[in-house]
Amino acid sequence: MNISMDQLKDLREKTGAGIVDCKKALEESKGDMEEAVKILRTKGLATAAKKSGRTAKEGLIGSYIHHNGKIGVMVEIRCESDFVAKTPQFLELAKDLSMQIAAMAPRFVKVEDVPAEVIEQEKLIYREQLKDEKKPAPVIEKIVEGKVNKFFEDSVLMEQVFVKDNTRKVKDLLGATVAALAENIQIHRFIRYQVGEE
Amino acid sequence: MNISMDQLKDLREKTGAGIVDCKKALEESKGDMEEAVKILRTKGLATAAKKSGRTAKEGLIGSYIHHNGKIGVMVEIRCESDFVAKTPQFLELAKDLSMQIAAMAPRFVKVEDVPAEVIEQEKLIYREQLKDEKKPAPVIEKIVEGKVNKFFEDSVLMEQVFVKDNTRKVKDLLGATVAALAENIQIHRFIRYQVGEE
Repeated sequence: MNISMDQLKDLREKTGAGIVDCKKALEESKGDMEEAVKILRTKGLATAAKKSGRTAKEGLIGSYIHHNGKIGVMVEIRCESDFVAKTPQFLELAKDLSMQIAAMAPRFVKVEDVPAEVIEQEKLIYREQLKDEKKPAPVIEKIVEGKVNKFFEDSVLMEQVFVKDNTRKVKDLLGATVAALAENIQIHRFIRYQVGEE
Repeated sequence: MNISMDQLKDLREKTGAGIVDCKKALEESKGDMEEAVKILRTKGLATAAKKSGRTAKEGLIGSYIHHNGKIGVMVEIRCESDFVAKTPQFLELAKDLSMQIAAMAPRFVKVEDVPAEVIEQEKLIYREQLKDEKKPAPVIEKIVEGKVNKFFEDSVLMEQVFVKDNTRKVKDLLGATVAALAENIQIHRFIRYQVGEE
């Protein structure tokens, strides 16, 4: 059984167990990570009940609470080094993105995150709206495509117009920060709470 | 077709469409709420793409960001009136709960929120741990039950010991606030971000 260093490292991060125990567990589980976690837990060598925070990824949690306390946002922004995570530019990016999300309520970080079913459902509705317009099919499809792009501009954070500077999109803001700090920077996830919404 | 007032109200909150249009849509969808939303959207009478914030529920979003910016928490606490949501006791509850969640990383609000599969999985692991102990089955089950309770005390916010006063549980803190403010107060949801955790 060949256990890779990556698997070992991953299991160690997930469980906090020793490297020898991790190796044994992975051999026993034939490389199955989830099974290996269970084996370590069964042996009392790991507590997987809580998500482990032991990873090397750097970054920052940005947040914004509206003054009335009814809207709140958190966003996790990742970078490569803690040095960059502590720069004023990175802090400002976190603040700007939090306010953007609070104001514009996006649903996804980037276009690739929008599930295909969601796009299909949108298209269905647009076509239905257009069906009495007696336009040729290619024209209809062109309009539908335009509406899908509009949908992205509304619902996808990276495609939204930046509220603090409406000549740029959020992805341009991110691009500028990446260029300035010379590190890979990613908007990893965000969440927006509004009192009473669900 | 009998459409209830509750359905009408619900659809109206979801879509912002007029009451007559909501009634028609529900009749057309034979009471199917999701279908009725689609009908209203198709007719251009609603935009359901964003979650609607139009509800009467009151409350507050509490939050806490750890000083290093690597851990963040949001919690939505609900009450009945905006008056109560603005009291110092309610604000303090929001603050205390946010810090509790940051420090103790619960996974669920209350015991009823823990999925049955999760409890079964825990029991399986506990029984496996105990299988060499040669104890009678009822004793084993007693121990397993104790371990499940311990699991709840670790993972369920309401069952956790309150970090600011370890003579009380979080549910006692909540109960005291309910008694003081004489309103139904609920921890509706929470989320905890830790940089790099997933």
